[in-house]
Amino acid sequence: MASSAIETDGQEILDLEKNRQAEMSQWVLNAPEPPSLWRELMDSARETVLPRGKRFPYLKDKDGLSKTVISVLQAMFPIFSWCRHYNATKLRNDLLAGLTLASLCIPQSIGYATLAKLDPQYGLYTSVIPPLIYAVMGTSRDIAIGPVAVVSLLMSSMVPKLEDPEANPIAYRNLVLTTTFFAGIFQAAFGLFRLGFLVDFLSHAAIVGFVSGAAIVIGLQQMKGLLGIAHFTNKTDVISVMQAIWRSVHQYWNPHNFILGCSFLSFIKLTRFVGKRNRKLFWLPATAPLISVVLSTLLVYLTRADKHGVMIIKHIKKGLNPGSMLKLDLYALNQHHSLSIGRSFASIKGYHINGNQEMVAFGFMNILGSFTSCYVATGSFSRSAVNFSAGCETAMSNIVMAITVIISLELFTRLLYFTPIAVLSAIILSALPGLVDPHEAYYIWKVDKLDFLVCIGAFFGVLFASVEIGLLAAVIISFVKIIIFSIRPGTEELGRLPGTDIFCDVNQYPMAVKNSKALIIRVKSGLLCFANANFVKEKIMKWATEDSQGKRTVQVVILDMSNLMNIDMSGIASLLELQNNLASGGMELAITNPKWQVIHKLRLANFVTKMGGRVFLTVGEAVDACLGAKMAAV
Amino acid sequence: MASSAIETDGQEILDLEKNRQAEMSQWVLNAPEPPSLWRELMDSARETVLPRGKRFPYLKDKDGLSKTVISVLQAMFPIFSWCRHYNATKLRNDLLAGLTLASLCIPQSIGYATLAKLDPQYGLYTSVIPPLIYAVMGTSRDIAIGPVAVVSLLMSSMVPKLEDPEANPIAYRNLVLTTTFFAGIFQAAFGLFRLGFLVDFLSHAAIVGFVSGAAIVIGLQQMKGLLGIAHFTNKTDVISVMQAIWRSVHQYWNPHNFILGCSFLSFIKLTRFVGKRNRKLFWLPATAPLISVVLSTLLVYLTRADKHGVMIIKHIKKGLNPGSMLKLDLYALNQHHSLSIGRSFASIKGYHINGNQEMVAFGFMNILGSFTSCYVATGSFSRSAVNFSAGCETAMSNIVMAITVIISLELFTRLLYFTPIAVLSAIILSALPGLVDPHEAYYIWKVDKLDFLVCIGAFFGVLFASVEIGLLAAVIISFVKIIIFSIRPGTEELGRLPGTDIFCDVNQYPMAVKNSKALIIRVKSGLLCFANANFVKEKIMKWATEDSQGKRTVQVVILDMSNLMNIDMSGIASLLELQNNLASGGMELAITNPKWQVIHKLRLANFVTKMGGRVFLTVGEAVDACLGAKMAAV
Repeated sequence: MASSAIETDGQEILDLEKNRQAEMSQWVLNAPEPPSLWRELMDSARETVLPRGKRFPYLKDKDGLSKTVISVLQAMFPIFSWCRHYNATKLRNDLLAGLTLASLCIPQSIGYATLAKLDPQYGLYTSVIPPLIYAVMGTSRDIAIGPVAVVSLLMSSMVPKLEDPEANPIAYRNLVLTTTFFAGIFQAAFGLFRLGFLVDFLSHAAIVGFVSGAAIVIGLQQMKGLLGIAHFTNKTDVISVMQAIWRSVHQYWNPHNFILGCSFLSFIKLTRFVGKRNRKLFWLPATAPLISVVLSTLLVYLTRADKHGVMIIKHIKKGLNPGSMLKLDLYALNQHHSLSIGRSFASIKGYHINGNQEMVAFGFMNILGSFTSCYVATGSFSRSAVNFSAGCETAMSNIVMAITVIISLELFTRLLYFTPIAVLSAIILSALPGLVDPHEAYYIWKVDKLDFLVCIGAFFGVLFASVEIGLLAAVIISFVKIIIFSIRPGTEELGRLPGTDIFCDVNQYPMAVKNSKALIIRVKSGLLCFANANFVKEKIMKWATEDSQGKRTVQVVILDMSNLMNIDMSGIASLLELQNNLASGGMELAITNPKWQVIHKLRLANFVTKMGGRVFLTVGEAVDACLGAKMAAV
Repeated sequence: MASSAIETDGQEILDLEKNRQAEMSQWVLNAPEPPSLWRELMDSARETVLPRGKRFPYLKDKDGLSKTVISVLQAMFPIFSWCRHYNATKLRNDLLAGLTLASLCIPQSIGYATLAKLDPQYGLYTSVIPPLIYAVMGTSRDIAIGPVAVVSLLMSSMVPKLEDPEANPIAYRNLVLTTTFFAGIFQAAFGLFRLGFLVDFLSHAAIVGFVSGAAIVIGLQQMKGLLGIAHFTNKTDVISVMQAIWRSVHQYWNPHNFILGCSFLSFIKLTRFVGKRNRKLFWLPATAPLISVVLSTLLVYLTRADKHGVMIIKHIKKGLNPGSMLKLDLYALNQHHSLSIGRSFASIKGYHINGNQEMVAFGFMNILGSFTSCYVATGSFSRSAVNFSAGCETAMSNIVMAITVIISLELFTRLLYFTPIAVLSAIILSALPGLVDPHEAYYIWKVDKLDFLVCIGAFFGVLFASVEIGLLAAVIISFVKIIIFSIRPGTEELGRLPGTDIFCDVNQYPMAVKNSKALIIRVKSGLLCFANANFVKEKIMKWATEDSQGKRTVQVVILDMSNLMNIDMSGIASLLELQNNLASGGMELAITNPKWQVIHKLRLANFVTKMGGRVFLTVGEAVDACLGAKMAAV
């Protein structure tokens, strides 16, 4: 009697268990329909383009309009937020930082302008308008705006293909300004339509490789100034530049230029060394370039070394930015770097950078810059670091810097007549080692070999082909990497972790125990599609038949689909073939944990009915249900 | 006393539970190192190129060599396997199937040869050597080998770009043979090196669209024969062909051709209708083309209609395949279709097709074919269906067919002098509707909208541009689809299924309950990489901060990584930023179930230590551990 009661109880529990399993299978099978392709497209477009939901929370209020206007203005012009809390202490710090910045910025701007094959004053112009606009619209406090080495190199390697800077300097300059205008338009549009993510298509590894390569190319270009070579190649690849240097050195070069450049390069490097040793002397390396310019100019002026072959800047046009005209042309933007500069400093100080607002700010500063004779400005890492060390508090330091540059443009340009070009080259050269980052490259190599390939691809592309090919190589390798990872037909066998109901990869978790009758397999890619479905099917068949012949008798093949985000027609066809092949070998196929899109498509394609409805939520249930049924059948 | 004992017990259980959790976390963290990139590459290369492990099981035996040779020969030439069990019944069936096949094959071959802009006898040649070689080397029993419509179209659309078939027919023919030779070399090489998976890069949907488009193009090309147009365009796109037809119809066309063609087309269609109604009359549609050829030839001969503008074949060269010379050129292969024909019939009859051996067989038959004046032969779907219905047993039916064609070449070619071209066009036209598959296209549309886009892309590409552009469009759309799916920055929130410890997508499983203090998020793509990492990070931050302000207080963000196959440097950097941002908002980040490569890289990048080691195996444990710790802290 008692035993019979227990039996009944056991039976009941078994029934309950079965009902529970059936219920959970129904959960899987009766999932609501996933959003259609069209709705998903719309949703993601809305999510991408539109800002957060609560942007205009006051619109419903009565006096909502003015508040809304204020909040929109504050979002567009962050200066309204921070200038209300501005005080004397902050001004003192920003003033100090701004002046330090200016002393570094003036010589660098002149140097970068010559790197971009423009007259020196254009570098200075670019250090006036863009920083002022950024100070009004930007959200980063530490970034220092102005011309930078890599962008200048990009300009000088792309634009001369359309217009020769030596034969037709005015047309060349106009084209550079047009390029700047369109770079600005793109940046602003990307920011306004929240398409900032497109900038991410250049991966971190690609940027590291590209910037390192560009730094070396820039360094080699400086040999022109350092050696006092008059005729130099327009190409940027290492081999052409080396050949040009080799030719020039054999024909004619002036040792005075070289000696002058090298001495001041050593001086700047020395100050940097001192500044690193003693953090309080941070102003020493920051002002060293300006000191070098002043000293060398004085030296040349006093000794009239320009009569002995030392090349000098000669005339720099006095006065503020003139207006500029436009001519239509296009330009690929270089945004990623400055955003990441802003982010890294922001994360040190713990405030938030709004990526899209930054894009808008960069865009407007370049658009307005292009109307006022500026070429593409962006955030400079070296100057931002100086700004940070100098203790800047807000974007006011950029304003201070811009005002200082304006004063210099009005008063001191004539004093730069005798500045030797070799010293400008030395200043640029001194800033380059910061761009080459072997530590980061080694870190990438250590963590991710394929990312290192991207990095190396960009590096050698820039070095031996051209700037564009370097970028292209990086983007192509990155996307090929994505495709390979997405369609690699990997599979892994799962086993039960001891003492749990969890099934894991037996390679990753060596303690996991394989089932003796069920082959549990998980696909190692996010898609089961035309490119990998057939291969995966053959692999599973091979495992199933080999195991059946040898080590163990496989009765059930359980395919864990938890990885699969999506499946296509070829994938479904392969599953169907797998099911047929297994059935003809006397084995059953069960699938577990299909994702929303996958189960929806399998249902639409009638696969679920064709395979006898063996769809489960977890591997554990599938094992119990399938082997239980087999047992009962025996 | 008792209560204290219970407390102690409770404490012990709690401790045990904690130890268990810690142990499982250790399982995750102390996984063995995954195989290096190099080893993975080698493994997959070995797996791809080398055959299954047990190919030479006898090599260790004493008398192993002879057995090995036999097994290799049997693998290379499956005829040795099946001919040992060959008997009279099988021969009778194969004879019947082979003769039926020949009656369909002879008129079709002549028609396809004219479609490929070759002399009619080349179609017949192609129905001799390739079927014989396939019979020796192939593994499919049902497939019928010979020239097919789509390949003939490919030939006539690609080769004339290099050599004009009308101006220089001998050079054109040599180029076609060379193309055939290289198609064979590629197929054989792909088969020998087990690279058959490369063929899968043309997805099922692409093939459906491409073949449908090609069928319409072929149909339009037949208007030339049906209308008796002498000068026709060499282009294949619909617009050019329609223009050519329009022009010709307005200038000169002969109604006799049209009437003759249409009557026989109606006759063939009628027999097909009858054959479908009564399965026993399957031979009627199969022999209808031959009957049409005989009847129409007799008709033209008796009425001398060729004097009244009916275009006829005229001379077909008598005799067997002559040898042929080669000239170097390349050709993209069209293998996928015949493999899938073989597979579909094999799955009906329940035997296994060896994809790589098939490739080798196709390769050798085309290489040897190119030496004997054959152009590219492959499996024909319509003829394979006839072969299947006629009850073929082995590849012997192909041999029977080839012998029949040989006899015809020797004896009957002169009789074909008066065969009207319009009837050949009618025969080709009658075979085309089988290639256009609107049902399959609708099925694709129903199940997978993006695959339908691939299908439509291939279809319109072939129709309105060219054959190559159609193929290219399909491949490009397919790969763009893969990239989009792999990097779409989707995230989903997880909730606990009632009564379980399972956490699922709350949209897919509406009954799942969200946790009130933990935001549990899973990334919806297989990769966290440069292209989506930043977006995912921002999305999680948005959810976490909005939920914290409003509906619930998020204390812990749990990132379920079970989907992620891999991560790159940008992904790790984004996770680090996410961790910092959450920490500055007073929230904790925990990760669960990272895959092998992911946890390895996170460990290498020191992320695990930086985030405080909150790595768990399951979401349930993460929730318990994190919220438990928070409680204890309060």
